[in-house]
Amino acid sequence: MGYRIEHDILGYMEVPDDAYYGIHSLRAHENFNLSGQSIHRELIIALAQVKKAAAIANKNIKLLDKKIADAIIIACDEIIEGKFHDQFIVDALQGGAGTSANMNMNEVIANRAIELLGGKKGNYDLVSPIDHVNLSQSTNDVFPTAVRIAAIKLLKPLSESFANLQVALQEKEDEFKDVIKIGRTELQDAVPVMLGQEFGAYAQAIARDRWRIYKVEERLRQVNIGGTAVGTGLNADIRYIYSVIEILRDITGIGLARAEYMMDPTQNNDVFVEVSGMLKAAATNLIKISNDIRLMSSGPRCGLMEITIPEVQAGSSIMPGKINPVIPEAVKQAAYQVLACDYAITLGAQSGEFELNFTLPLIAYNLFNEIDLLKNAVDMFIYKCIKGIKANRHHLEEMVEKSLSYAIVLSPHLGYEKASMIAKEAKEEGKTIREVAKKYFKEEQLDAILNEYEMTKPGIPGLKRLRGENR
Amino acid sequence: MGYRIEHDILGYMEVPDDAYYGIHSLRAHENFNLSGQSIHRELIIALAQVKKAAAIANKNIKLLDKKIADAIIIACDEIIEGKFHDQFIVDALQGGAGTSANMNMNEVIANRAIELLGGKKGNYDLVSPIDHVNLSQSTNDVFPTAVRIAAIKLLKPLSESFANLQVALQEKEDEFKDVIKIGRTELQDAVPVMLGQEFGAYAQAIARDRWRIYKVEERLRQVNIGGTAVGTGLNADIRYIYSVIEILRDITGIGLARAEYMMDPTQNNDVFVEVSGMLKAAATNLIKISNDIRLMSSGPRCGLMEITIPEVQAGSSIMPGKINPVIPEAVKQAAYQVLACDYAITLGAQSGEFELNFTLPLIAYNLFNEIDLLKNAVDMFIYKCIKGIKANRHHLEEMVEKSLSYAIVLSPHLGYEKASMIAKEAKEEGKTIREVAKKYFKEEQLDAILNEYEMTKPGIPGLKRLRGENR
Amino acid sequence: MGYRIEHDILGYMEVPDDAYYGIHSLRAHENFNLSGQSIHRELIIALAQVKKAAAIANKNIKLLDKKIADAIIIACDEIIEGKFHDQFIVDALQGGAGTSANMNMNEVIANRAIELLGGKKGNYDLVSPIDHVNLSQSTNDVFPTAVRIAAIKLLKPLSESFANLQVALQEKEDEFKDVIKIGRTELQDAVPVMLGQEFGAYAQAIARDRWRIYKVEERLRQVNIGGTAVGTGLNADIRYIYSVIEILRDITGIGLARAEYMMDPTQNNDVFVEVSGMLKAAATNLIKISNDIRLMSSGPRCGLMEITIPEVQAGSSIMPGKINPVIPEAVKQAAYQVLACDYAITLGAQSGEFELNFTLPLIAYNLFNEIDLLKNAVDMFIYKCIKGIKANRHHLEEMVEKSLSYAIVLSPHLGYEKASMIAKEAKEEGKTIREVAKKYFKEEQLDAILNEYEMTKPGIPGLKRLRGENR
Amino acid sequence: MGYRIEHDILGYMEVPDDAYYGIHSLRAHENFNLSGQSIHRELIIALAQVKKAAAIANKNIKLLDKKIADAIIIACDEIIEGKFHDQFIVDALQGGAGTSANMNMNEVIANRAIELLGGKKGNYDLVSPIDHVNLSQSTNDVFPTAVRIAAIKLLKPLSESFANLQVALQEKEDEFKDVIKIGRTELQDAVPVMLGQEFGAYAQAIARDRWRIYKVEERLRQVNIGGTAVGTGLNADIRYIYSVIEILRDITGIGLARAEYMMDPTQNNDVFVEVSGMLKAAATNLIKISNDIRLMSSGPRCGLMEITIPEVQAGSSIMPGKINPVIPEAVKQAAYQVLACDYAITLGAQSGEFELNFTLPLIAYNLFNEIDLLKNAVDMFIYKCIKGIKANRHHLEEMVEKSLSYAIVLSPHLGYEKASMIAKEAKEEGKTIREVAKKYFKEEQLDAILNEYEMTKPGIPGLKRLRGENR
Repeated sequence: MGYRIEHDILGYMEVPDDAYYGIHSLRAHENFNLSGQSIHRELIIALAQVKKAAAIANKNIKLLDKKIADAIIIACDEIIEGKFHDQFIVDALQGGAGTSANMNMNEVIANRAIELLGGKKGNYDLVSPIDHVNLSQSTNDVFPTAVRIAAIKLLKPLSESFANLQVALQEKEDEFKDVIKIGRTELQDAVPVMLGQEFGAYAQAIARDRWRIYKVEERLRQVNIGGTAVGTGLNADIRYIYSVIEILRDITGIGLARAEYMMDPTQNNDVFVEVSGMLKAAATNLIKISNDIRLMSSGPRCGLMEITIPEVQAGSSIMPGKINPVIPEAVKQAAYQVLACDYAITLGAQSGEFELNFTLPLIAYNLFNEIDLLKNAVDMFIYKCIKGIKANRHHLEEMVEKSLSYAIVLSPHLGYEKASMIAKEAKEEGKTIREVAKKYFKEEQLDAILNEYEMTKPGIPGLKRLRGENR
Repeated sequence: MGYRIEHDILGYMEVPDDAYYGIHSLRAHENFNLSGQSIHRELIIALAQVKKAAAIANKNIKLLDKKIADAIIIACDEIIEGKFHDQFIVDALQGGAGTSANMNMNEVIANRAIELLGGKKGNYDLVSPIDHVNLSQSTNDVFPTAVRIAAIKLLKPLSESFANLQVALQEKEDEFKDVIKIGRTELQDAVPVMLGQEFGAYAQAIARDRWRIYKVEERLRQVNIGGTAVGTGLNADIRYIYSVIEILRDITGIGLARAEYMMDPTQNNDVFVEVSGMLKAAATNLIKISNDIRLMSSGPRCGLMEITIPEVQAGSSIMPGKINPVIPEAVKQAAYQVLACDYAITLGAQSGEFELNFTLPLIAYNLFNEIDLLKNAVDMFIYKCIKGIKANRHHLEEMVEKSLSYAIVLSPHLGYEKASMIAKEAKEEGKTIREVAKKYFKEEQLDAILNEYEMTKPGIPGLKRLRGENR
Repeated sequence: MGYRIEHDILGYMEVPDDAYYGIHSLRAHENFNLSGQSIHRELIIALAQVKKAAAIANKNIKLLDKKIADAIIIACDEIIEGKFHDQFIVDALQGGAGTSANMNMNEVIANRAIELLGGKKGNYDLVSPIDHVNLSQSTNDVFPTAVRIAAIKLLKPLSESFANLQVALQEKEDEFKDVIKIGRTELQDAVPVMLGQEFGAYAQAIARDRWRIYKVEERLRQVNIGGTAVGTGLNADIRYIYSVIEILRDITGIGLARAEYMMDPTQNNDVFVEVSGMLKAAATNLIKISNDIRLMSSGPRCGLMEITIPEVQAGSSIMPGKINPVIPEAVKQAAYQVLACDYAITLGAQSGEFELNFTLPLIAYNLFNEIDLLKNAVDMFIYKCIKGIKANRHHLEEMVEKSLSYAIVLSPHLGYEKASMIAKEAKEEGKTIREVAKKYFKEEQLDAILNEYEMTKPGIPGLKRLRGENR
Repeated sequence: MGYRIEHDILGYMEVPDDAYYGIHSLRAHENFNLSGQSIHRELIIALAQVKKAAAIANKNIKLLDKKIADAIIIACDEIIEGKFHDQFIVDALQGGAGTSANMNMNEVIANRAIELLGGKKGNYDLVSPIDHVNLSQSTNDVFPTAVRIAAIKLLKPLSESFANLQVALQEKEDEFKDVIKIGRTELQDAVPVMLGQEFGAYAQAIARDRWRIYKVEERLRQVNIGGTAVGTGLNADIRYIYSVIEILRDITGIGLARAEYMMDPTQNNDVFVEVSGMLKAAATNLIKISNDIRLMSSGPRCGLMEITIPEVQAGSSIMPGKINPVIPEAVKQAAYQVLACDYAITLGAQSGEFELNFTLPLIAYNLFNEIDLLKNAVDMFIYKCIKGIKANRHHLEEMVEKSLSYAIVLSPHLGYEKASMIAKEAKEEGKTIREVAKKYFKEEQLDAILNEYEMTKPGIPGLKRLRGENR
């Protein structure tokens, strides 16, 4: 394979003949060998969309020659469709606030456009990565705009995944609506609840996550394309500035708006902290739910044994027949990783200086990781765990029967202190509450009071029936 | 001072004669010696408001004797007004999901009510902390409800502080609207901006914070009072459940609503993560702004020297005359502490189990610290720093003049590469851009192109004027 | 109460007549109203020790008048003994890298020394806070040195507390050495272990913590006293520099050493990250152990019920007789707060600039909080929980008997796959392993293989006995 | 391509004919689609080393047939040499505490061994992944042991990279040892230092990092191989347990030791927190240094302009000639990512339960990322930035001359307050200290006192010379 020679302000380099990227990409590739990760597929697409919009806007106001513009637009469309993604060789973590990602895109588009115009890659007189592809733009408006577009694109399906999880939980809420079980506070036996109610509470939390993720995407719609280097719009024609956002809206199908104050999104990244904060909240809910499921499915003989979760793989390389809750475990780990991503985003967002925050590559890297991890974890959770959960009804009922939680319903009738004594006696002597409470109530009174099903609903069990009788 | 003897399920203890708290508070006080911090003043008030609402509701449905209820209500009012706050002796960090805070409140109210009824403190036959003051309630609905009320109360003035900061920044935006300065990206000289524009960008970010904090309070309005132990409402009369929320709304003046699904706020704390996430975003903006101000005021002779901030104290115990940017430094440290509080809240929120998350005391402690710190920091920032900032106009102008950033405006006329060469030559030979660019343009062309004031606005400086001439 | 007038470079202020602090303290007090916390008692003492050492060193080389020096030394001793601590009015969180804390100390000492010399507070001609008390010093060497001394002083008892915890755990290891129980991996029943072995494993982890905390203190011994403003030692007499460290070593009883390169500790705070990292590791162990104890003590009827922990207070305001694991809960919360403190320290440590890191007050505040919290939590854990733990032997044995974990010991005899099938059959049909395994082994073979006590030790149960027979 | 059919306890699956992995790997691959990252190359090698050691030990005591053992050993060697790495298809993040990674290894080895024995892949009668390859082992001893080995292997070159960085900084210390510059505290002009001294202070901090990383590796040497499922060694022959560690030591060349208490490393992960805590400390130093370098190289005309760093790529897509400090920027981002990894590790380590912590895959994933990122960042920093730094001597000297920091050296002669007034007057009237101080000193006295070079060393400039004269 041969090489072509390219040059930039620092000198000359050999670029592989068949490469669509050029010298700027190559330098960046050599400079930054950090994460070993490429820039995210959606970010590549979003960058190409921005480039396309700029080319159209520049063409419309005749800043860009029609022929060149059309070649650029076609090249952009190809990238948007998924072509040439292997030509993006710069590390996701990179110095320079995204300049290398932007230049990689400029070069790939330029070389592809050159090709389309019948030229030879590297002949930038035909199409220049900077003077043509990057015309009226700066990394500082292109990159923040593209990151927002990519994030919005990724957040939508994430919101849907949370919606699916909510539905899956609600199906279980319904399925288990009359499965009584012991409630627990601080891991201690409390009063009975329905297993369905627990899944209902999970669904509530997840519904909030879904809503937050659905809504928070709006915070990303204000973009600074047209702001160029520092948000003042220097070197961008005013007609370009006003039209590029409209065109970009059409191309992306997202309700983007030009930030009123374009210097703001160029330098301030608090919206990413906000978005990530929502994902963090979702992660805490996933951790809580996956923990509960791990606890409820603990056993099979010496744990809580309240539910059975689907077996998705053999559990142990040494203990035959052991099945582990690997899916909730994987969910929890993914959620922890999400918290770590949020941390990195916070660190990035607080380190802006003057007209720019150079850590946007770090922020983007973690934001996309965060979204992908959540999406993968939620989908896995739904289809490989939640949907297949079965209740161990018999065991659950047994537990309620032998619990001491009944003491609470004696309180309105006997006072807290006497009820406490009954509970204490039952506990210490291995009796049931009913057995100990017999000395205070008639049989039929106890039947009325010690009604587990009433205990899962508002009100004082047995109160009405006893009113006429003993109070 | 004498002692009275109190007893509970575990035994007997001496309680100081004049103490309004009782044996449960005392045990908790001895058990938890952790942070050395008391529960927050606003939380004390909110707990008393909840107790008052419960007493009224219980009275209305005749579950609670009128005389006892009225004494309880008066006691609550006294606490709400600020009395007896020294009687809250339990540590802010405590095991038990707030039970100790709740019991401390129950005991103080009971003993004060006993006193009001002419009894002797400790005579719980008159008013019982549990059977009367805590009637129809559980720590698990009282405490989460009170924490939300207290947080809402604290968030309102915080939002106002951010509004004040926004105004202060906008005043500077106006004051400095024609103060030109060099913009900087990645700490390198970029293109000129107005100092006012920078303050405008800060104001934008702070406006978002203000708005977020103003709005996010709504997420806390759904409370679980009436849900009792696990959110099912067991032991609470249905009439109580429906009325207590209305009464509490009146007492607090906050638009509280009963959570549709009361088991949810009992066990899920993601809303606190959400609220704290907003405060975290605000903290990142404060860090960014305070960093910029520290950088801009660096000097007095060897730094950027762009602005002068008010001197609020002598700066050094060894370097005479040194004045340090102690206010932005304090803001940054407070903001870092806020990030740490947010971390603690996240850790707490993810560790819920089944029907309860026992870490709510940890969450509340950090949330209130976070809000207080932000409020104090923002107020300090406004009045001891922002309002007194002065621009070093002359120096700022000088900087712009000698900068090389002009090269950017040559780009549309000469292309990026040629413009780069001019910049490089100027840099290496210690010349100005104008000096080097002279070979490409006539004097009057350069006057049109190298116009710093135009550079702070959208568009291509000099383009129109040059159109007829040289393109 | 009257006022005296003091002045500084910024103007005049009224200082209460009886105050030992002066105008610099007062300005700082008014400037920084952030955490509401005072500087830590041990830091006050350590600052006074540094001042005393400096006074002695200055006196010895005749830089400081003997009479003045002696008065300063007495004043320092008084503060070291615990007097005047209420005169330290500056907030623990403060701008200025500790200047305000240092000046507060300088002023209190100066005014006390003035008093001792028969003068009137505020008459700084007699003893000047700066020219005398702060002689040869800078905040930038005094404060970092004092923070290190205070930290070392606090770490020693912390290490002892961990040693005590280790002993308490080892006592339980011994007490429970023959209490068999089911082991659990991934919350699923695994193979039997001894309860004592579990406590032994906890003790191992805590032993590491103890050792780390014991050792890490050494990292703080290199101090920069004598380095003055930036670590170069400017304005400090060379004889002072060499002697002050010796004197300080005597005063504190700590093996302090002058940093070889005094500019280093002035500006770099990575040692605090290192120290805090050790505390963080300890916190993770405490969380793990407290979680296990919460799980093992879950019940009393529907949980694991493996151990009983001491009852230290009534558990619920609504559920009579409920006892919650409030001590492990409090431990976990304290440990989470420790993680948050570590976060703040990391944020502080990474934000140094040039010759100083202005966030040392933030770092110190969190480090001392972290140590205090850990100390309080560990002491509470030992005496209110660990020591009183009792094993529910009977229940533990029952669990082992009905577990399916026996399948593992069939593996060496039958192969993993056949053993898996036996486990599966037992699980699905509600049988014991023994029942299902009968078809493969003779009764006495099974007796040899299915020996729970052998299962808690290395080796293949029954292998020897079976060797001659069936393999 | 054809398929073979494999089965496990859950049923049957098609495995590609040419795959060395089997059904367990495939299930895991389908179950966990989380990070998209494979397990780390070094972890693959370390797992193979453990398997090799186990095979040898089992062979030696005749538990494993010699022919099978030898085939396994060859297969292991091939993997250790880098072959078959593409056969490891399980996600780095996975539920099950590493079971899937272990099974993937077992299957690849088994199939390769089968092949070596002339069999057909999938014919596990020849070599069984579990009964032969995993003989005497459990994931719970294999995986934690392998993670430690891989970490040790990765830490060594990391320590060397830090050593190289230290050397590079010391070379600059030497190169710049007489380059005077203004010191800065709190970003304000302080007293002069040598630029070399600053690099010396950086080198000190990095030397600590190097040492910490060099030493901390020891903490990982205690491994639990032989402990099997829960650390009790069940199902492992005692001769195996004692010999496998010796063999593994030979194979790896690392001074591994069997943990005294094998249940401890199976369940406790605090050593990873400790190791990561050291890496975190290193990250904070890198952030500090990279920030200083960014600040010092700020300009080229409107910043501090103290040093020039190598140009490694064009800086801006819009601003011609702009060169950005992309290397320190990338270092800072990598370091932030390291902090995030440490966070994830902490979260993982605190979530262990009973005999195992299932989050070890999360911990390992982040630990290896952390080490790789640091290594890449440090190497990049050295060769693309530090080595090429040049001092702008002339500008640095000019800055010192016009600074007001000289006031400090007047203090010992005039007292702090008078020196402050001189500094204030100089600042306000735009004069130099010398100009204002003239009224207090003779010309030759000022020459003696205002000696910048003396200011960078301990002592009071001019004191001796003035002693005879004016004090």
